Amino acid sequence: MKAKVIAFDADDTLWHNEHYFQEAENKFKELLEDYLPQHTVARELLSTEITNLPWYGYGIKAFILSMIETAIRVTDGNLNAADINKIIGFGRELLDKPVVKFEGVEQVLESLKDRYRLVLATKGDLLDQERKLRKSGLAAYFHHIEIMSEKQESDFEKLISHLDIVPEDFVMVGNSLKSDVLPVLELGGFAFHIPYHVTWEHERITHTIENQRFHQIERIERLLEYL
Amino acid sequence: MKAKVIAFDADDTLWHNEHYFQEAENKFKELLEDYLPQHTVARELLSTEITNLPWYGYGIKAFILSMIETAIRVTDGNLNAADINKIIGFGRELLDKPVVKFEGVEQVLESLKDRYRLVLATKGDLLDQERKLRKSGLAAYFHHIEIMSEKQESDFEKLISHLDIVPEDFVMVGNSLKSDVLPVLELGGFAFHIPYHVTWEHERITHTIENQRFHQIERIERLLEYL
Repeated sequence: MKAKVIAFDADDTLWHNEHYFQEAENKFKELLEDYLPQHTVARELLSTEITNLPWYGYGIKAFILSMIETAIRVTDGNLNAADINKIIGFGRELLDKPVVKFEGVEQVLESLKDRYRLVLATKGDLLDQERKLRKSGLAAYFHHIEIMSEKQESDFEKLISHLDIVPEDFVMVGNSLKSDVLPVLELGGFAFHIPYHVTWEHERITHTIENQRFHQIERIERLLEYL
Repeated sequence: MKAKVIAFDADDTLWHNEHYFQEAENKFKELLEDYLPQHTVARELLSTEITNLPWYGYGIKAFILSMIETAIRVTDGNLNAADINKIIGFGRELLDKPVVKFEGVEQVLESLKDRYRLVLATKGDLLDQERKLRKSGLAAYFHHIEIMSEKQESDFEKLISHLDIVPEDFVMVGNSLKSDVLPVLELGGFAFHIPYHVTWEHERITHTIENQRFHQIERIERLLEYL
């Protein structure tokens, strides 16, 4: 591995994120319990989110709008304005959550920063991600911040060319096999997968990956055994 | 002027935008006419938008959420779910609007592209702006696309340093004195202002600008007399 650039995903790779969304989703399901069982609400919300993805993208605002649309639909419009305000409130709480870094993150970035160019490559809402990065205190470690609307092969291709390197120089570290690992391996880059205990349904894949350029590690510190 | 990089704002500089928002706002004001006079609704909406700006940023999703919040507030919660759906619909229509370029834009970019590095520097929602750029067919003219959560002096400072130039090499072209002109002049760069017939209240400034590095032109083609 002759890596030049190490790119890190942010949410659930450097800091906790998905479990906050799941907390908000739990409140949402409780709010609608009088209308529908919780698991049905969950399924309806996921379906709204996936339908809205090309229109709204990722992030908290998209999540709030999808909750509102789902709530109106599953209650047949029998939802009052106070409930909508509550849903908006669930989202607003998300915007205000602290950024809790994983153990070892700072030490790993510190150890890598003089030997590689470090990049943050994250999907999501521009403002949300900038806010979290600022709160994390990690911004100074990164040579470049890339906030992407999608993480498909073509998006990584653009990023790699923008960084003036070839895919063989590029290492991606993240918690999503679908977004962080597969597209990078496909291009010829290297990928480290650090599973997180909660994965959004939409990011799950079921097959296993066999590739010389792929490693699965259980904690971010284990990166240092390879890099 | 020894410009190396020419940066263009997008909305209302390269293509029409604000008037679509004003169309949506008109529908919103009509929807609430039974509760409040239109000018009061407009004032309330603006106040919600400005309060939400640090939380939601710019763009269509933020606009939809601000409309919903305003509607619930000004009707004291006497709004039904069907009306909320209508409001979401006003926003969804915005996402689907065609991108109508201003006359001369393509010709100006064509003429400048081999002599300068052209950059798109726009505020707003990542996905919205990428969609509009794709629809515009102008992406290939730009060496770099910068979608910014804000356009303050420090944001331009970062962009200029990222482009490996000094402010004296940087020319910004845009329709907002507040976002495109003042911060760039302050840093020592050059700025061209092309007024658009509608400006969002929040982007308006009242004083006049006297600066050797500032030009006001009435059409984008007039750039070619300077560059």
